Amino acid sequence: MMNILYVAPALGVLALVYTWVRSGWVSRQDAGDERMRTIAGYIADGAIAFLRAEYKVLALFALIACAFLGYLGTTGEKSSPVIVIAFLIGAVFSALAGFIGMKIATKANVRTAQAARTSLAKALNVSFSGGSVMGMGVAGLAVLGLGSLFIVFYQLFVVSKGGGANGIEMETALEVLTGFSLGAESIALFARVGGGIYTKAADVGADLVGKVEAGIPEDDPRNPATIADNVGDNVGDVAGMGADLFGSYVATILATMVLGREVVAAGDQFNGLSPILLPMVIAGMGIVASLVGILLVRVKEGGNVQAALNFGNYASVIVSGIASFFIIRWMLPPGELVIGRAGSVPFTSLDVFYAVVVGLIVGTLMSIITEYYTAMGKRPVNSIVQQSSTGHATTVIGGLAVGMESTVLPIIVLAAGIVLSFEFAGLYGVAIAAAGMMATTAMQLAIDAFGPIADNAGGIAEMSELPKEVRERTDILDAVGNTTAATGKGFAIASAALTSLALFAAFMGTANISSIDISNARVLAGLFVGAMIPFIFSALAISAVGRAAMAMVQEVRRQFREIPGIMEGTGRPEYEKCVAISTQAAIREMMLPGAIALIVPIIIGFAFGPEVLGGTLAGVTVSGVLMAMFQSNAGGAWDNAKKSFEKGVLVNGKMEFKGSDAHKASVTGDTVGDPFKDTSGPSMNILIKLMSIVSLVIAPHIAAPERAVAPRPVERPALSLEPKVRYAELAPEATKVLFVLLRETR
Amino acid sequence: MMNILYVAPALGVLALVYTWVRSGWVSRQDAGDERMRTIAGYIADGAIAFLRAEYKVLALFALIACAFLGYLGTTGEKSSPVIVIAFLIGAVFSALAGFIGMKIATKANVRTAQAARTSLAKALNVSFSGGSVMGMGVAGLAVLGLGSLFIVFYQLFVVSKGGGANGIEMETALEVLTGFSLGAESIALFARVGGGIYTKAADVGADLVGKVEAGIPEDDPRNPATIADNVGDNVGDVAGMGADLFGSYVATILATMVLGREVVAAGDQFNGLSPILLPMVIAGMGIVASLVGILLVRVKEGGNVQAALNFGNYASVIVSGIASFFIIRWMLPPGELVIGRAGSVPFTSLDVFYAVVVGLIVGTLMSIITEYYTAMGKRPVNSIVQQSSTGHATTVIGGLAVGMESTVLPIIVLAAGIVLSFEFAGLYGVAIAAAGMMATTAMQLAIDAFGPIADNAGGIAEMSELPKEVRERTDILDAVGNTTAATGKGFAIASAALTSLALFAAFMGTANISSIDISNARVLAGLFVGAMIPFIFSALAISAVGRAAMAMVQEVRRQFREIPGIMEGTGRPEYEKCVAISTQAAIREMMLPGAIALIVPIIIGFAFGPEVLGGTLAGVTVSGVLMAMFQSNAGGAWDNAKKSFEKGVLVNGKMEFKGSDAHKASVTGDTVGDPFKDTSGPSMNILIKLMSIVSLVIAPHIAAPERAVAPRPVERPALSLEPKVRYAELAPEATKVLFVLLRETR
Repeated sequence: MMNILYVAPALGVLALVYTWVRSGWVSRQDAGDERMRTIAGYIADGAIAFLRAEYKVLALFALIACAFLGYLGTTGEKSSPVIVIAFLIGAVFSALAGFIGMKIATKANVRTAQAARTSLAKALNVSFSGGSVMGMGVAGLAVLGLGSLFIVFYQLFVVSKGGGANGIEMETALEVLTGFSLGAESIALFARVGGGIYTKAADVGADLVGKVEAGIPEDDPRNPATIADNVGDNVGDVAGMGADLFGSYVATILATMVLGREVVAAGDQFNGLSPILLPMVIAGMGIVASLVGILLVRVKEGGNVQAALNFGNYASVIVSGIASFFIIRWMLPPGELVIGRAGSVPFTSLDVFYAVVVGLIVGTLMSIITEYYTAMGKRPVNSIVQQSSTGHATTVIGGLAVGMESTVLPIIVLAAGIVLSFEFAGLYGVAIAAAGMMATTAMQLAIDAFGPIADNAGGIAEMSELPKEVRERTDILDAVGNTTAATGKGFAIASAALTSLALFAAFMGTANISSIDISNARVLAGLFVGAMIPFIFSALAISAVGRAAMAMVQEVRRQFREIPGIMEGTGRPEYEKCVAISTQAAIREMMLPGAIALIVPIIIGFAFGPEVLGGTLAGVTVSGVLMAMFQSNAGGAWDNAKKSFEKGVLVNGKMEFKGSDAHKASVTGDTVGDPFKDTSGPSMNILIKLMSIVSLVIAPHIAAPERAVAPRPVERPALSLEPKVRYAELAPEATKVLFVLLRETR
Repeated sequence: MMNILYVAPALGVLALVYTWVRSGWVSRQDAGDERMRTIAGYIADGAIAFLRAEYKVLALFALIACAFLGYLGTTGEKSSPVIVIAFLIGAVFSALAGFIGMKIATKANVRTAQAARTSLAKALNVSFSGGSVMGMGVAGLAVLGLGSLFIVFYQLFVVSKGGGANGIEMETALEVLTGFSLGAESIALFARVGGGIYTKAADVGADLVGKVEAGIPEDDPRNPATIADNVGDNVGDVAGMGADLFGSYVATILATMVLGREVVAAGDQFNGLSPILLPMVIAGMGIVASLVGILLVRVKEGGNVQAALNFGNYASVIVSGIASFFIIRWMLPPGELVIGRAGSVPFTSLDVFYAVVVGLIVGTLMSIITEYYTAMGKRPVNSIVQQSSTGHATTVIGGLAVGMESTVLPIIVLAAGIVLSFEFAGLYGVAIAAAGMMATTAMQLAIDAFGPIADNAGGIAEMSELPKEVRERTDILDAVGNTTAATGKGFAIASAALTSLALFAAFMGTANISSIDISNARVLAGLFVGAMIPFIFSALAISAVGRAAMAMVQEVRRQFREIPGIMEGTGRPEYEKCVAISTQAAIREMMLPGAIALIVPIIIGFAFGPEVLGGTLAGVTVSGVLMAMFQSNAGGAWDNAKKSFEKGVLVNGKMEFKGSDAHKASVTGDTVGDPFKDTSGPSMNILIKLMSIVSLVIAPHIAAPERAVAPRPVERPALSLEPKVRYAELAPEATKVLFVLLRETR
């Protein structure tokens, strides 16, 4: 039986072997001429410098978190200080995932540029290989880390104490394992926010002075912020996203495992462990499915890159779906499974498979809908293009309306997915649907990460003044990359939403509450406060970008003014000063939003109890999902509205091109959208997941008193009046909440 | 005892007498010279034409609604077809409230302009008198309508059947009375959305071509859209707001009455009716308090207009607070009151008074916070001003960040208000807090409505080429009007939020459900769908403004091109064509968002039952309140950032004025903010109230089966798994929901 425990870690190792081999292959490709290597060197150095500075600060944060976790671990009866170790490993693995991605991206970018001198097929091969290294690295680290820690904790807390699959010993083992996810997700939040601020401060700063004021093209080597801009692609779009999806992937698997403990699978071949192990095995299988998909991505010169990527992607989704059928049949016992401590509706292994299928469908639909709202030539982007003809303001209004409208269909799909997967297999069904959706994370990441690599390759080609056809080839890849970035965001939001719900359910079980009743005034107040968090978080992230961009603008203006010969290309811009501005701003500005996500659930949980915290989490999740879609899709749509003008587009029966007034208005829209789609929007995912994980970690410490079997001790009155609270007890805690939230608004 | 029933209607008549007398006084003021009267005539005609067109469409809608209500009224055992009559009276009164406001505003505007030739004090007197006519008209109609209908229904359904204050007969009487509120609120929604689209289409259209392209000042008679712009102030900011606050006021009183039925007040002098009658008597008292405040508003030449208004406002709030203490002591019995059908925590009359005080404090704090975020010279507006120096995009980003940030403190105040008023007197406490806050509605409206009157007066002064000091005096009033408009919005949002919660509670009681558990997957799905509604509603409203403004832009451009001598002032622009464009666009575009608000609760309620509908309402309320604050405050802040440049402001150590690049960027921000703050933002209030009222009306028809006394028949399982639903039953309803929501996104 115990062999099953090693399946997931073994497949994790397989993924890492792929990472190592493929990474070697990328490194052996031609890195081009002297000038290309020099520029690529600047970019790589800038990226490393940022990660070093960021990780230094995060190490300090991790120490504080360890102290807090260690304290918690020694107090609760179901806890253990071992959680500190799990947390640290999670944090280090998450940082490593970001580092691997950044490292391969800064190698693949220049090699893609060089490959693009030969052919489009070769350029795609190099850039997509870079992406696949990152995807496999993330998935491998996640599955290996979770899988081996589970083996250790299972031995330590369950086997050694003679516990079973559904007992309190297993609860402790999984509670400790939560530390891994907490470590992963908190690093992810800082990486996403920090990277997001970095990349957009550089991008907006470079564009505002370079393109708009000085009138030089994008990625022009005379622009002092251009290196920082290209570094940003690597630390934000690559390292940040890697850490983000690493966190989602781990959190999903973990939440399903926690809920799996509540599923009684009598008669399986694994001592009843099958519902707990299933999500890990599915994740391992997903690595194989992704590998199949990755190997299928091929394109001929002049071929359709998007179609090639889609083919690989759909292949991996379909392989996942089919393989999960057999895995579920093999692992789960044939009869009915029972979930929950009070007798509840049983479900069969087939129901679990249906839930996985629901997850796969939800993920696919979300990607398709997101693509519709952000793709060139479709109605939403076209409506923005038309409104650009009446100026800056109408362009912005049009994009905001598109972003808001774009929430409708995804929410309906998501709501239907929640209800359906729940009907099939209860909350375990919701969780396993998320796990099914996330199974092909490696493939998704490969597709996602190839975009910024191609973008960087284009930048290097421009700065190194390579022949025009090189830039044309990288532009084809870059355009596809923009679409995959948008669909990837749709996928990430859907996964984050389902993951948060799974974590939410796990939290309720662990905190020992059976309902979260919004007709209770305090829960309702929690819902309001929770729903407000994504707004203040976005406000902080957006205004951080604004401040940092202004600092960048002033530095670039200064260099244009003071460095002789800079515009003629004879004076060398001080790239490193711009890199330093972005780095410092990102590190400084990521602290407060990160702290809010970590501290708010702790304060609310300890001051007002688990039910109010549950209301808060529901508020954060609902409003966070909406804000994520609104911001990401508005940003994506503005971006492609601007790109439409670059290609030439029909407005009021007249072709409009780059340089027209309408195009200038569309540039304004794109700039507004930058922090939306690359800083605050994608941070929402991590925000909602992280707040749920923090709640799950503190859940045993704020749990409602253990109840006997089924009956409820106290009947709720008809209008659910709670006994009056003693204000004297609440006042100090309430003051603390107020203090933190007031400070945010400084 | 029965005399108490006549108190509220009598005070309503008093308010209407004031309206009549004061309106006569305004009419007798000098309306200026021939040219002023001609221009004012255009504006009045345009406003009447719009209201006529709008009310014609709404009459059709009312017929359909009556058929539906009549059908409902004959089916439920607690219902009666008499609800149709209540609905019609509510609809007519709401329309009348808007009409009175619009009528007095179009008289007061030109007389204010004429009065401004003499002195500031006289101009304030005329414009504020106009506002007070509207405020008293709205409050008088509401209290008179509700009060006399209650007398009729009390006789018809309760006295004639020998029922008591807490019985099922009273439930029917109040259910029928809900029709009045439904009528009022549905007309309000259409009026707000239609008026909002009208005013902003005209405003944006006039600005984009007039100010930006042709370079002529605001309100220049050469601009063909200038009359439409001034009509818009009357139909949007006056008639729309009047209908809005009429709806809030009625809904708040009604919700408190419905919850009052659950309060057992044994031993009062009014047959136990006191908790039901209390909100009406407080509203009547509020009319007197407002009258006191209105009479205290006086200013000398060169005096501080804002201070005079604040003095009157605070006076009426304080009078309200003190008077409610004595009213509550007099009406409620001295002992403990008991709320709810299952025995719950009792409270005393003093607790009810404390809840009223909480409401007054919440309303005042909300106004103060809103003013901070939108006032010139304060940190938020200043931050936008600074970001204007780096262009259009950073101005927009800055405003969006301010809007998002501005949600933090109001949400904390609101959450604290909910918890506190609930702790004092349960859900009745939340409702009576809202009623206390709304008591001074007449005064609030007087302050609110004086702004657009002064704005119009300025427009007429400009178009009639009156001496410069006239415009200067109206500008002083207009600037104060901008601040009062912002604080009025804060007040409206707070009242809508508390009202919705009160309605939400009333809905739960009527629908016979005792909890709304978000750990139930279907309720959670409802929460997601509900939270999405404000986004699609805003998207529709905003894009409607965009489309209508573009049509306006093209018409104005055409007139500039085709009418000879228009720029020299010798050719007369075709004002009426622009008025027609705004009118048609507003009527056409208000239908879909209005339909969503009305239909979604009906579909969800009948298809998925009351608990899922409860989740939906919670989602709508939470996300609607946040979106209302975000949009209104962002819009207000952008507006005043622009105004800062008109006065001259220090940016990066340099004074910047009108005409600078930074000022142009700030105009973009202001234009983006226009539909935010005057169309979609304020519509959120009505959206959340209307959806709650619709739910309350259908509640008896979707109610859970009547339960015996306290014990719950079925225990919820630990993880709250519901029995599996039969999809075949749900499919047709689900298809309908999908259909409606898909159509929205056309």
